[in-house]
Amino acid sequence: MIKVAVLGYGTVGSGVVEVIQDNNALISSRLDDSIEVKYILDLREFPGDKNEKLVVHDVNVIMDDPEISVVCETMGGAGAAYEFTKAALNKGKSVCTSNKELVEKHGPELIALARENGCNYLFEASVGGGIPIIRPMNTSLAPEHIDRIMGILNGTTNYMLTRMSEGGVEYDDVLKDAQELGYAERNPEADVEGHDAGRKIAILASLMTGKTVRYEDIYIEGITKIEAVDFAFADRLGRSIKLIASAQDKDGELSAMVAPRMLSKDHPLSGVSDVFNAIYVTGNMLGDVMFYGKGAGKLATASAVVSDVMELAKAARDKVTLPCRWSAERVQLKDCSDNRLSFFVRTASGEADRLKGALKNAREIAQIDGQTGFITDEMSERELSDAVKGMDVRMIRLD
Amino acid sequence: MIKVAVLGYGTVGSGVVEVIQDNNALISSRLDDSIEVKYILDLREFPGDKNEKLVVHDVNVIMDDPEISVVCETMGGAGAAYEFTKAALNKGKSVCTSNKELVEKHGPELIALARENGCNYLFEASVGGGIPIIRPMNTSLAPEHIDRIMGILNGTTNYMLTRMSEGGVEYDDVLKDAQELGYAERNPEADVEGHDAGRKIAILASLMTGKTVRYEDIYIEGITKIEAVDFAFADRLGRSIKLIASAQDKDGELSAMVAPRMLSKDHPLSGVSDVFNAIYVTGNMLGDVMFYGKGAGKLATASAVVSDVMELAKAARDKVTLPCRWSAERVQLKDCSDNRLSFFVRTASGEADRLKGALKNAREIAQIDGQTGFITDEMSERELSDAVKGMDVRMIRLD
Repeated sequence: MIKVAVLGYGTVGSGVVEVIQDNNALISSRLDDSIEVKYILDLREFPGDKNEKLVVHDVNVIMDDPEISVVCETMGGAGAAYEFTKAALNKGKSVCTSNKELVEKHGPELIALARENGCNYLFEASVGGGIPIIRPMNTSLAPEHIDRIMGILNGTTNYMLTRMSEGGVEYDDVLKDAQELGYAERNPEADVEGHDAGRKIAILASLMTGKTVRYEDIYIEGITKIEAVDFAFADRLGRSIKLIASAQDKDGELSAMVAPRMLSKDHPLSGVSDVFNAIYVTGNMLGDVMFYGKGAGKLATASAVVSDVMELAKAARDKVTLPCRWSAERVQLKDCSDNRLSFFVRTASGEADRLKGALKNAREIAQIDGQTGFITDEMSERELSDAVKGMDVRMIRLD
Repeated sequence: MIKVAVLGYGTVGSGVVEVIQDNNALISSRLDDSIEVKYILDLREFPGDKNEKLVVHDVNVIMDDPEISVVCETMGGAGAAYEFTKAALNKGKSVCTSNKELVEKHGPELIALARENGCNYLFEASVGGGIPIIRPMNTSLAPEHIDRIMGILNGTTNYMLTRMSEGGVEYDDVLKDAQELGYAERNPEADVEGHDAGRKIAILASLMTGKTVRYEDIYIEGITKIEAVDFAFADRLGRSIKLIASAQDKDGELSAMVAPRMLSKDHPLSGVSDVFNAIYVTGNMLGDVMFYGKGAGKLATASAVVSDVMELAKAARDKVTLPCRWSAERVQLKDCSDNRLSFFVRTASGEADRLKGALKNAREIAQIDGQTGFITDEMSERELSDAVKGMDVRMIRLD
């Protein structure tokens, strides 16, 4: 019998309990062992909840119970979640989590602590919700030198950009709509400013390099400056606008960024709509692979947590360490301004001649709503910003 | 030191050697152990090849060498490959393969034989080439009841259908083009008649159920009857035509088929073009996930084999059995004629009135090139074929 404790009975935590209970026969048969949730840690009471009796308020009940071999941390944040995770690992209990903030901040330390204590720390659900990506990075893609990762890693902003792509809607209206539907939070900053995607690409870039890429070091640009007219130009170009989190290894130097990109319609990420997420990975032998699915949502995310629970239970029985290459050595990121690519730029049509003069390599594509749009040849961001210094220009990177 | 033998130095086998040699430093570091190819079994000589000295002609050299812990079977077929795989497993050597025919025919027997001998049998590369799908089915999707799998599992036919979708090209011309490019074989039957996709969906359906779904039991229809006019109708409907291999569990009854389908443009599989493959999986908790990438090709397929080699090497060191639920119990498939769905049907325009009379629920959509096309409401295939009995009607299933 595998006995599991769930820390935090919020959206994901209650989903984990639901998946383990509702798919119990199937999970037990695949594990060759029965499985049950023995405790749920939460400060609140849940009167009337069918799992009311499993709720405990004191984490030590869980830590001191030798029957608990696997702990699911679905609390979020890097405070109590960090302390409880360390406590569990120190007791030799394996831990899995959906907590991207904690994984981004303390991943290598917690992986090392797990190894010291003969247990494991897994975090499949911390990136891409229900999409299998962390385990494939550690196993299926293990023979590969990963050249590049491009991801749509935030469902809220992808929903908003999808609505805007349907035409004529401005950012503020779409945000309000997303908030009413519960896709965006009252304070939407973490999503719309790209911070959520930034933490996730930091985790993926760390697994890509085997070292630590920190969120603070990544250039991050959100979607708040995107306007309806940008979609009109994108449409004219046969392109879509997506918030892309990317990490690229070029000649051994890593660059990483989160920023809106205009993708050509035949790029596999360009068709990823609504709240769906996708991660597009390029390996040196494999070429391109893509993983697509629900990047958030109670049961999808919970399913990823439970896949970790199952792997942890098997690893505990077999007494093995699961593969995860992530050392604390911090990667010095290359300045993104040196990356060479093509850009969409636009300015007020009255300024178009001045822009043409400054940017010799820019091709005019259209005039829409008093704005003139251009596509540049490949150039560095530094060259672009130097060329248009002092001008009122809006820029979106192409893929 | 992990010493590997590769059986068969053809396209995939030579790719496996190349991946292990070219990415050797990276693979060794991720394995915490060095790895080398010690033998290559092939009947041919390879004078001038840099691995000429590794080539042996007698399989017993490999079987009798206790240093060999992992064998890659990249020979194909179910004859010698079957005998050699059994011999290796009986010696406690783990085996991985790209050989869909062998896996489809003897998968559960070989998995059981590996377990009896304390080793493992893996086959990631047997479906979807370089796309991670078998390992995710066995691990990431382990908590899920899989409701449905839909896959574009054959690159040759997907290339041909993509070319036809660009308009005005007939099947025979596209086939010739694909043969000239080396995408289709001189004898293209296994691809164009759907047999290759059929073997692959049989493997996936087996993993989905944990029992054995046999290729012979699956309804299989190829792309040879698709004409340019079908794409003209599809275009009018905003749909694409893809060869879809599918398995569906409805109320505990499994149906499986390979057949062309007209997919709506917002279906994630509809944008999968050229030689790419994708597998779209629906779980009861997770919802929809999709895995996309190169379904064939030397290095992509080889990378999948090498990911198995790495997992087998680690499992051998840890002395563990890897999870794979696939028993020999044969699944009784439901008759596909009972599935309810919508259909595209067309007939000569002179026969359109007769068709309308026979199919009350059919909506006329267009007349193109002397053909009249219709879309039906949901109905069973049996109802459709009964209604149009004796008429010259072409039918394509919708998604």
